Amino acid sequence: MPTDNFADLLTQQIRLKKTPLVVGIDPRLAQLPASIRDAALHGSAEVTAAEKYEIFSKGIIDVVAPLVPAIKPQMAFFEELGPSGMLALANIITFAQDKGLMVILDGKRNDIGSTAQAYANAYLGKRPKSPWGADALTVNPWMGFDTLVPFTQTAEKNAAGFYVLLKTSNPGSAELQEQNTDRGPLFHQLAVHIEQLATKTCGSCGYGIAGAVVGATYPDQLAKLRSMMPHTLFLVPGFGAQGGSAEDVAAAFDANGLGAVINSSRGIIFAYETPEFESTAKSNWQHAIEQATHKAIAQIANATPASQLR
Amino acid sequence: MPTDNFADLLTQQIRLKKTPLVVGIDPRLAQLPASIRDAALHGSAEVTAAEKYEIFSKGIIDVVAPLVPAIKPQMAFFEELGPSGMLALANIITFAQDKGLMVILDGKRNDIGSTAQAYANAYLGKRPKSPWGADALTVNPWMGFDTLVPFTQTAEKNAAGFYVLLKTSNPGSAELQEQNTDRGPLFHQLAVHIEQLATKTCGSCGYGIAGAVVGATYPDQLAKLRSMMPHTLFLVPGFGAQGGSAEDVAAAFDANGLGAVINSSRGIIFAYETPEFESTAKSNWQHAIEQATHKAIAQIANATPASQLR
Repeated sequence: MPTDNFADLLTQQIRLKKTPLVVGIDPRLAQLPASIRDAALHGSAEVTAAEKYEIFSKGIIDVVAPLVPAIKPQMAFFEELGPSGMLALANIITFAQDKGLMVILDGKRNDIGSTAQAYANAYLGKRPKSPWGADALTVNPWMGFDTLVPFTQTAEKNAAGFYVLLKTSNPGSAELQEQNTDRGPLFHQLAVHIEQLATKTCGSCGYGIAGAVVGATYPDQLAKLRSMMPHTLFLVPGFGAQGGSAEDVAAAFDANGLGAVINSSRGIIFAYETPEFESTAKSNWQHAIEQATHKAIAQIANATPASQLR
Repeated sequence: MPTDNFADLLTQQIRLKKTPLVVGIDPRLAQLPASIRDAALHGSAEVTAAEKYEIFSKGIIDVVAPLVPAIKPQMAFFEELGPSGMLALANIITFAQDKGLMVILDGKRNDIGSTAQAYANAYLGKRPKSPWGADALTVNPWMGFDTLVPFTQTAEKNAAGFYVLLKTSNPGSAELQEQNTDRGPLFHQLAVHIEQLATKTCGSCGYGIAGAVVGATYPDQLAKLRSMMPHTLFLVPGFGAQGGSAEDVAAAFDANGLGAVINSSRGIIFAYETPEFESTAKSNWQHAIEQATHKAIAQIANATPASQLR
């Protein structure tokens, strides 16, 4: 049945690919495959860093498109290259969607009032609804709940979603997020608000278009938040290279293995650098990425309710 | 005396221009002067929205460069136009610096670990130190104090600065920022941390390269924060169109009229739309902007310690 609810669209993709794994696209110049990194000339012109990121990212997408529901490009690494990096990013988003992937853009944007609206217009909804054309965007809540309104409204209109930074995976995340207030830990108050937004925007899958970023590195909090937020989609970073195991992310899912996507970036896209996949990588760096993707999918299926999707 | 400390550089500019007023560059298509908005053709090609933003912004810069120390472009409005908007923004930054203005980029960026470093690399420090080449960037602290380290280090290295969102000017800013914790209001804890970073990075002017964004719409809090943070530069939005008066921002300054910049965006850059400047604008929209800039400078000088700069 056709739907224009982001949660339904993502859930369909998860069921189709039978996994909640999302591949993070975090390119870094020094870690590109040698064949791309050392590409000197393109016709008579030098291959720019942005072109190298685009070649690399499209190479990843070719491999993972049949395997996973979505990719999560990290905007900072494209912004680091200047305007040409931003153009490469836009090209990559379109390329991924043409291959049947959804795109969760990790930009952690936000501002107040009409400026938050400008960010929502910039990123939420496939082209030409927005110039970047992402299916979802990560959003920072620090400025207040009023700043989430433009994202909710625009996402609803454009068949898109957004994920609010609720509990991030870094060591310092406790400092502001976990502060003990008169009404309990601060991020629990935020959780209640996000769950309200999710409940108001529920699709037929039972989840809403307002999601939450919850790090894999704090499994007990993940379980607590899952129980507090039955209608909220989770985006779980921190799996793999950042130290979160498949067991650590199990609590992110409902009993059907739905309600969450698990991101892995470095562990997959730089797999050709690791001893485990080195021999595969000798023939083709993309094979190493493919093997690492299969391995992460299996790890998650073996240790979480995502096994229900198989 | 030559210096590579952002606080010293900004203070020199404030003394040179004899005002702490900063002009916010927040273009919107529907509000551009008719002569730019309706520009149909450029040679044989259509004038793009991004080109219109660039023409408008450069027209503002031509007017305000002799009058104020810095501009504050709002990234969201350029991102709203896609990659071409980001290219226009880069061009505008260079153009402004060539005219002797400093550029505080309002992007409210942040992330964790090496990703925060990528944002710092992207924005902090004049070209070619960074591809965008800003003198300072606004930064969101929600993910924790560890996320401020890359900005501190990179700003120190690149003669740049950054402003942490401490107390924003919107109605919802109280929800997370003002939460009452075991150790007092949350933003007071953040204030203590920012002041430490500022103290460690002090220039000869007595201020550091880590600053704070504090809205003009909460004058009592501004006074309290000024007393808590004697080494921290303030960036004060909310003056003018958002409702903050010159009296409201007086507490942002030290006794010499230093330590803060006051931003005005819509009240200046769209002055040609207001009845007060309408007759001036009929001949030339830039004249209206010039008049509005002079008026804001006088208002701040008349009601705050910035009078000391004259």
